[in-house]
Amino acid sequence: MKKFLDHPDQLLPDSLAGFCAAHADLVALGDGAAYIRRSSPRPGKVALISGGGSGHEPLHAGFVGHGMLDAACPGQVFTSPTPDQMLHAAAAVDGGAGVLYIVKNYEGDVMNFDMAAETASVPVARVLTDDDVAVERSTWSTGRRGVAGTMVVEKIVGAAAEAGLPLEACKALGDEVNRATRSIGVALTSCTVPAAGKPTFDIGVTEMEFGVGIHGEPGRKRVALGSAQQIAQDMAEAVLADLGNSHAADRPALLLVNGFGGTPLMELYLMYHHLRQRFAAARLHIVRSLVGNYVTSLDMAGCSATITLLDGDLLKWWDAPVHTAALRWGV
Amino acid sequence: MKKFLDHPDQLLPDSLAGFCAAHADLVALGDGAAYIRRSSPRPGKVALISGGGSGHEPLHAGFVGHGMLDAACPGQVFTSPTPDQMLHAAAAVDGGAGVLYIVKNYEGDVMNFDMAAETASVPVARVLTDDDVAVERSTWSTGRRGVAGTMVVEKIVGAAAEAGLPLEACKALGDEVNRATRSIGVALTSCTVPAAGKPTFDIGVTEMEFGVGIHGEPGRKRVALGSAQQIAQDMAEAVLADLGNSHAADRPALLLVNGFGGTPLMELYLMYHHLRQRFAAARLHIVRSLVGNYVTSLDMAGCSATITLLDGDLLKWWDAPVHTAALRWGV
Repeated sequence: MKKFLDHPDQLLPDSLAGFCAAHADLVALGDGAAYIRRSSPRPGKVALISGGGSGHEPLHAGFVGHGMLDAACPGQVFTSPTPDQMLHAAAAVDGGAGVLYIVKNYEGDVMNFDMAAETASVPVARVLTDDDVAVERSTWSTGRRGVAGTMVVEKIVGAAAEAGLPLEACKALGDEVNRATRSIGVALTSCTVPAAGKPTFDIGVTEMEFGVGIHGEPGRKRVALGSAQQIAQDMAEAVLADLGNSHAADRPALLLVNGFGGTPLMELYLMYHHLRQRFAAARLHIVRSLVGNYVTSLDMAGCSATITLLDGDLLKWWDAPVHTAALRWGV
Repeated sequence: MKKFLDHPDQLLPDSLAGFCAAHADLVALGDGAAYIRRSSPRPGKVALISGGGSGHEPLHAGFVGHGMLDAACPGQVFTSPTPDQMLHAAAAVDGGAGVLYIVKNYEGDVMNFDMAAETASVPVARVLTDDDVAVERSTWSTGRRGVAGTMVVEKIVGAAAEAGLPLEACKALGDEVNRATRSIGVALTSCTVPAAGKPTFDIGVTEMEFGVGIHGEPGRKRVALGSAQQIAQDMAEAVLADLGNSHAADRPALLLVNGFGGTPLMELYLMYHHLRQRFAAARLHIVRSLVGNYVTSLDMAGCSATITLLDGDLLKWWDAPVHTAALRWGV
């Protein structure tokens, strides 16, 4: 394992301290480093809170700010945050209009966010993201996993909350975005959790994991490493099959090509090129694109493709101004 | 080698096609894929053109757009673009106020940009970047190497050009920014050039290269991999020693912590935390920060630290609106 590291126990607090110092105009660290909060809260709006295990940066702290999240609760690497963290975050950022938790579908996250919701002193609703089409259950999830599509939910609901939509409408919109979103990921290498000090899984030099999870969970199958074009074709087909080809035709969509942390941008744009061609061939109308490392798996080489159908108001909310450490436009 | 790849010859053209499709609102591909140009040129302003070998993405194409570059000329991976590319780019984006080439100090780049300048039909000036304090000469450079500080030059001069400064003033400003900028990099792993198919250099599991170049060129020394805190201290001292400690005290500065492509954001913020503390201890006043993968070396694990002293108008130009694929604010 070759990492920038002091003691593994210090990685999360020092990294958070660095993050909050670098972006002091946007965010502040909550008491006991339990959460990162927006430094300029807006009273009267629904407060959006997400969180989960660390190691997926910039998700979620990188999306705290105007037009996206009000707080993010970071657990240790690949470990759920505790209910206390969500409770404290909710108390800190509630603006009087209630709190919406955006939760990736992993058992630990679901349980801990639910516990926090049960004891909260403010109205709480929850959006569960499960956009990964790879498998119906996985190492830490019953039902599909929440992966890169989670950031799309956070962006779109964040814009709506900023515009003043009430809690129930934000929750309904979040569910709608999640239903309109599909993702699939592939891994060329394993990630290495700092405290473990060795790769999470073994993978041969000519293999890849098709349908990998963002913690290195097994996907659909271990296959031979093909050409970029072939991999993109298989990824696009997995997404399209799940969307229903006829269902997707001629509809506007966002294509997010997300790096897992160890893959150069040049390769991500190569994958974008092939993926876009496949989706266009299926008559999906790619009207918005995002390419980069947004929902990562530490140092894993690999990428995911996410499609969100941008019907109705979804395109408008996607385009609305956002100002966070990792996503910024219109402001 | 595990990469998303078809034939190595197809990597650059397909990646550029993907880049231009993903950012069609900002950029367009020039004839024969010789350059990427701003899709909405502004007549009457000085045209900024940079370029160099590919593999450092988002540098340079990711910085084409409002308030930064007018064109970028990509060579093959780690290979200089040809003079023809710069000539064609200059002809395409010249707005009547002349062209400023921003060139990283590598022999091939310098030679080819100079050849393009000699035969250009428009007024041309050149800014040479050589911000890397590691070594005084290197594999492909006489004098210091141009590394991550190049993007700071591009941002600041880009803002000034957008505001209407004439060619000679843009050139003088670029030289001033370069003189105010110092960088140092460390590598934990080698990068792998796709066409070579094997790591550029060997490095042991307990070693790192202190002062590495952005193509994997040797730095100052091969040393034992220390703690993040120790590495940050050594990096800060290299920069401060070169700046002159007394010279830097109480002056406003930008701190750029740049990932080389294979290092997770969580580790980059850890390094930022330690680096900021060291620079603060030297009474450098960090007023702006940037943390992420901006000037990469393919899949190399490692990072660089860059300080730019933001005296006079430099802070104003840094803060000015920019809208490119990889850097965006204020618009």
